[in-house]
Amino acid sequence: MTKRIIPSRRFIKPTFEFLIEKKRDGGEFNKEEIRYIIDSILDNEMPKHQQAALAMSIFFRGMSAQESADLTEEMMLSGDVIDLSDIAKPKIDKYSTGGVGDKTDLVLVPLAMASGVVVPMMCGIEHDYVINTLTKLCAVPGFKHTVSKDHFVSQLAKIGGSIAKQVDDLAPVEGKFYQLRKETGTIPSLPLITGSVLSKKLAEGAEGLVIDVKWGNGSFIKELEQAKQLARSMTRVGRTLKRRCVALVTDMNQPLGDTVGTSLEIKEAIQLLKGEGPEDIKDLVMKLGMEIVRLAGVAGSTLSAKQTVQRHLTDGSALQKLKDLVKAQGGDPSYIDDPSKFATAKHVRKLPAPKRGYVHMISAGMIAHGVHILGAGKTSAHDKIDYAVGVSEIKKVGTQVKQGEPLMMIHYNDEAKLEQALEYFKNAYRLAPKRPTPPPLVVERVA
Amino acid sequence: MTKRIIPSRRFIKPTFEFLIEKKRDGGEFNKEEIRYIIDSILDNEMPKHQQAALAMSIFFRGMSAQESADLTEEMMLSGDVIDLSDIAKPKIDKYSTGGVGDKTDLVLVPLAMASGVVVPMMCGIEHDYVINTLTKLCAVPGFKHTVSKDHFVSQLAKIGGSIAKQVDDLAPVEGKFYQLRKETGTIPSLPLITGSVLSKKLAEGAEGLVIDVKWGNGSFIKELEQAKQLARSMTRVGRTLKRRCVALVTDMNQPLGDTVGTSLEIKEAIQLLKGEGPEDIKDLVMKLGMEIVRLAGVAGSTLSAKQTVQRHLTDGSALQKLKDLVKAQGGDPSYIDDPSKFATAKHVRKLPAPKRGYVHMISAGMIAHGVHILGAGKTSAHDKIDYAVGVSEIKKVGTQVKQGEPLMMIHYNDEAKLEQALEYFKNAYRLAPKRPTPPPLVVERVA
Repeated sequence: MTKRIIPSRRFIKPTFEFLIEKKRDGGEFNKEEIRYIIDSILDNEMPKHQQAALAMSIFFRGMSAQESADLTEEMMLSGDVIDLSDIAKPKIDKYSTGGVGDKTDLVLVPLAMASGVVVPMMCGIEHDYVINTLTKLCAVPGFKHTVSKDHFVSQLAKIGGSIAKQVDDLAPVEGKFYQLRKETGTIPSLPLITGSVLSKKLAEGAEGLVIDVKWGNGSFIKELEQAKQLARSMTRVGRTLKRRCVALVTDMNQPLGDTVGTSLEIKEAIQLLKGEGPEDIKDLVMKLGMEIVRLAGVAGSTLSAKQTVQRHLTDGSALQKLKDLVKAQGGDPSYIDDPSKFATAKHVRKLPAPKRGYVHMISAGMIAHGVHILGAGKTSAHDKIDYAVGVSEIKKVGTQVKQGEPLMMIHYNDEAKLEQALEYFKNAYRLAPKRPTPPPLVVERVA
Repeated sequence: MTKRIIPSRRFIKPTFEFLIEKKRDGGEFNKEEIRYIIDSILDNEMPKHQQAALAMSIFFRGMSAQESADLTEEMMLSGDVIDLSDIAKPKIDKYSTGGVGDKTDLVLVPLAMASGVVVPMMCGIEHDYVINTLTKLCAVPGFKHTVSKDHFVSQLAKIGGSIAKQVDDLAPVEGKFYQLRKETGTIPSLPLITGSVLSKKLAEGAEGLVIDVKWGNGSFIKELEQAKQLARSMTRVGRTLKRRCVALVTDMNQPLGDTVGTSLEIKEAIQLLKGEGPEDIKDLVMKLGMEIVRLAGVAGSTLSAKQTVQRHLTDGSALQKLKDLVKAQGGDPSYIDDPSKFATAKHVRKLPAPKRGYVHMISAGMIAHGVHILGAGKTSAHDKIDYAVGVSEIKKVGTQVKQGEPLMMIHYNDEAKLEQALEYFKNAYRLAPKRPTPPPLVVERVA
């Protein structure tokens, strides 16, 4: 483990009990205390039960803006920080809190690359019920999600982007502390989420970060107010640490786009890279893309940002960048040229509307669970992911349907799994006689 | 470890994460959940970091009256419960949160015994800066603080009382959990204090409990409001568990009585058992003693309670009971007859008043620290306690003094220790020109 040397000026180590009690009683840590805490977690010097008590105190008491920034910085400095200063182009990364049907990374990264922005994206591959970006890319034969740091940096220099698994020596304390938080009910703490996400992201060497904070039934953040707070916390910490940061708070109360499932989502991403695809996700790609090019300084005005993004989505240059990225990481780019090569499911059947009416609500979480059951996710480490299964042609909120008309199409390989999954799909939809007002996709922009 | 059998009706074990999150979010545990938590701590099945997160959640969220009662009962049932049903007399115990100069146990236990009440008192012997009752008794040559459970019960049957070290198999989960709480900043939680104290006290087999909750600079409870809440929490839980309970909230903003120090305090206790001694502690002994005899049903009215207590303090019967108790546990009762046999310090000097005025405030905590430094307490396990050292003739709040007049007398054996201790003693007193209103000794009675 890399360990920084504590500056020579005198810092008298407090006891861990003292630090716990300080936070428990609403006190504010100074930078040296935070450094000491982070070092003590990294070096296994602070026992886990004391870490847990401290984390729970932070959950209840929160942290000031300065504390959050210090926490993030010290977590980042617990390991390597990738130096991209030899690359002249602007370097911007994107982060999303995660959502159902969210294939925007697959579109945005090549889009930014085509616009002259370098995107050093590293992400986790832990399997949640949401299918993550790296899992989707792994459906391309040969694609390697793990690359060395040298490979990562030289790929950035060469083609302008990479999407790869986090290398181990970035913010090593984060992984340790995150595991403890999972076991102690301390995941949903704004300063801890902020520190956890940004310490890794900022260690990747980007100068700026566009953040998509999702709220709703398909996000881990169920309340809009919480999402707004997280967006503010992250951008504030980013700014304090001298990174350009913009966050969009976006709706995740229904799946994003028309598809959920590995192959189906890649195909939808390829459509989007041709300027086609469903309106909602096209809109989100445009808005996030514009933020990236403006943050990078590639476009000065909103109008020029829009034109830049639109041009690269329609002239094939963004699509070409996806092929370059796949190829640079060992994948077969012919799959991008001919998406019909991706695995397809043996059976496709409709989910019929039980009555006529308007789609009033779709539980994105239930759809994700259903797709997971069909085989898109692992339930144990030995399971093989079925890239072919999923749902498509999802009728979105506000759509009118007749009785028996398909609410969506289900792609499946196993009848028994279908039976189980249907329970979730059926319960995911709520129909009502009156047309609902669909929620706005982008609720707030925080910069 | 004794483990109870979980009743056969179906209880689906929740995950520890679920339990932590439930309390974190303000939920209320049912009895089975609390039983499961206590069993899991006792059997080392719940990892310590999860115990810590749960304890900190309880610190912030509190517990309902029912939860506190269930917690106390389940902690009590984690081990043996002493059965005193063969003893016909009423069985009442007394508990104090602890204070500086508090020698009331040495008076109250024999006083209750003389009044026909059986007192099954077990207490800790962990050395804090406050000298505890068992340490004081150990100044009597031969006195054994540790007795077997059988000895304890037969001594109760024979002479009506015992003051002994807690036997290990009473509420075993309490000791474990307390150690964790000390390390995780979760000591000052009302329901956890209540559970911790009452689970042990109720396991001793008493039918009722008189509680002295002290507040002030010489108590671990610095705020009056907190002391009142603890008194309410304890009596409520006691009642829920079908025990008679009364609590007095009393002042601990100056030492109790005129002495602090092992031998000096025993001598003061013996004076009190002869109906003599300082007014403040005499008053407290009367009030607590009256509560005990009323709770026991020995006296029906306040007047008869007062008469009962006063009679036994003046007719020598309570003093005789202290001798019986000391003798029953191996001690030499001649020390009680002739207190001059107790060790005395080589040197006695006064602490002179730096100016004329009224004693406005005395930090009981600082006096305790000073006495500790003189040798009355251990700083490491190998230290020998010096029974002879301490302070006497303490001028109490409200007393007028001339410059140079003694604020108290210091009994010491070591000049170097005296020098150190003097810093505390000098700073313990605040003198002011105007006569202060001494605080009331008993602030509230909670029944």
